[in-house]
Amino acid sequence: MSLRYAVIGTGAIGGYYGGKLARAGREVHFLLYSDYDYVKEHGLQVHSVKGDFHLSQVHAYRSTAEMPPCDVVLVCLKSTSNELLKDLLPPLLHPGTLVLMIQNGLGVEADLQTVFPDLQIAGGLAFICSAKTGPGEIFHLDYGGLNIGSYSCRDVIVLEEVVADLNASGVDARLLDLEQARWMKLVWNVPYNGLTVVLHTTPDRLMNHPASEALLKDLMLEVIRGANQSGGGRFTIDESYADKMLEMTRTMTPYSPSMKLDYDHHRPLEIHYIYTRPIQEAAKAGYEMKNVRMLEQQLRFRQANY
Amino acid sequence: MSLRYAVIGTGAIGGYYGGKLARAGREVHFLLYSDYDYVKEHGLQVHSVKGDFHLSQVHAYRSTAEMPPCDVVLVCLKSTSNELLKDLLPPLLHPGTLVLMIQNGLGVEADLQTVFPDLQIAGGLAFICSAKTGPGEIFHLDYGGLNIGSYSCRDVIVLEEVVADLNASGVDARLLDLEQARWMKLVWNVPYNGLTVVLHTTPDRLMNHPASEALLKDLMLEVIRGANQSGGGRFTIDESYADKMLEMTRTMTPYSPSMKLDYDHHRPLEIHYIYTRPIQEAAKAGYEMKNVRMLEQQLRFRQANY
Repeated sequence: MSLRYAVIGTGAIGGYYGGKLARAGREVHFLLYSDYDYVKEHGLQVHSVKGDFHLSQVHAYRSTAEMPPCDVVLVCLKSTSNELLKDLLPPLLHPGTLVLMIQNGLGVEADLQTVFPDLQIAGGLAFICSAKTGPGEIFHLDYGGLNIGSYSCRDVIVLEEVVADLNASGVDARLLDLEQARWMKLVWNVPYNGLTVVLHTTPDRLMNHPASEALLKDLMLEVIRGANQSGGGRFTIDESYADKMLEMTRTMTPYSPSMKLDYDHHRPLEIHYIYTRPIQEAAKAGYEMKNVRMLEQQLRFRQANY
Repeated sequence: MSLRYAVIGTGAIGGYYGGKLARAGREVHFLLYSDYDYVKEHGLQVHSVKGDFHLSQVHAYRSTAEMPPCDVVLVCLKSTSNELLKDLLPPLLHPGTLVLMIQNGLGVEADLQTVFPDLQIAGGLAFICSAKTGPGEIFHLDYGGLNIGSYSCRDVIVLEEVVADLNASGVDARLLDLEQARWMKLVWNVPYNGLTVVLHTTPDRLMNHPASEALLKDLMLEVIRGANQSGGGRFTIDESYADKMLEMTRTMTPYSPSMKLDYDHHRPLEIHYIYTRPIQEAAKAGYEMKNVRMLEQQLRFRQANY
């Protein structure tokens, strides 16, 4: 029997991955807020470098209370809204439900687990440039991969089925060690998100000046060392990964990181899970990420002084 | 016989200290650029918290070639213009001339000495809030002390006479160990100059948010540790000096640090002597000022991307 999906947060991430699954024939139920009326009437439009598509019939809801219990819940909210989950999730859960946290940073699964001790939780890291550009309208500019890992899945078969469903929908999804996958994504997120906000700029400009390019690399190396220390030997990220990330970003379509978009729209910044928690985890393992900490402090000031 | 003074750079600093000396009857020759015509005709106006005064007869010059040799040269240029000194100084020098570098940062005397190996050089650290607000017009808002130290004075008597002249003119000047005095000033300059530019803000706002207040203190402590390491036991700055600087700044009249003013007016920033040289000196002594280095990198990016 095929899995029934719910998407919480039908934006740049949830609209894209949920949209891909729905288009491939999977049963997907979407929670919407301000876009509800528009999507109910006009459906969901995805403009994608991999091919545009339109979903005319969308299972759209205003509240999770109206949604059916689902096998897989894709949480695609900003992590700054995670406190909503304790109220949003219960109607969607049956005893075997798997919640997949498609969010950046470190510690989102641990925090959700304290609220729902028996819940099966996994995490997902989206490697995608996408944006919600209007009601029910998603622009997908580049990439699209999704790295997935178990946090507390009793039944790994379901997780493998999710990966298979995504692959069948044209999403390059794969299973990885979650802790390592989260840290690897941080190697990109920490420098580019923070510095584009603090220095009010774009990734390509940062790479076009030797001082900021060196700083990007310093920050990446600090995150890699924090990761390896915190991993305690369970995994190792090679320091050459920093150069790979710089190289990859150089070939990227010019793009504002999500935190910069949040900042420009005066939305709360995901400082806690992208900066504070990794700093704390590395410190617990005896490694002080001094420059990451400085960036965190600058971001907290910036957020309080738009 | 009383000393003959020259002032190179008749701005917020040179106009104030030179003005005070001239007002007290000392012979002071001022080098002016854009303000020359105005000052020649109208003199120099100092609005000061310690009492306004006006100098109607000013020894004003357009070029040092027209100036007489002097006993003491107060260099009050921005350190970003120091390459001009090799051409500006020679007409002012006699065998006993003392050049007093009233500039922030580390290494200005060493660099000048390589150009003039036999020159007697001292350094001065101005603790003053002042600004040039118009042609021949200086506003002095707060403080006014001048810490002076010998770099390569063969004749310390002259230096003591300079201090006496300044004190007699109403300037709170004193003799200190120059290296220690320069580092102590950096404890203030490094955090406030850099962070107000990078975060586009003011010292009081930085102190009104716990994250940036903690960052100010982190940076101060890093400078103090760099200083003590680099001092190699010749002097020690106590770590409690950081709290003293925070406390002092809290009671300061709201004010933009000189680097922020430079940035706002699109002038070159004094990154080299305030950041790069101290970072290098500490590194030579085996201490890495990681956060100061990050601030330097951010400033270099900012300066290239107004």
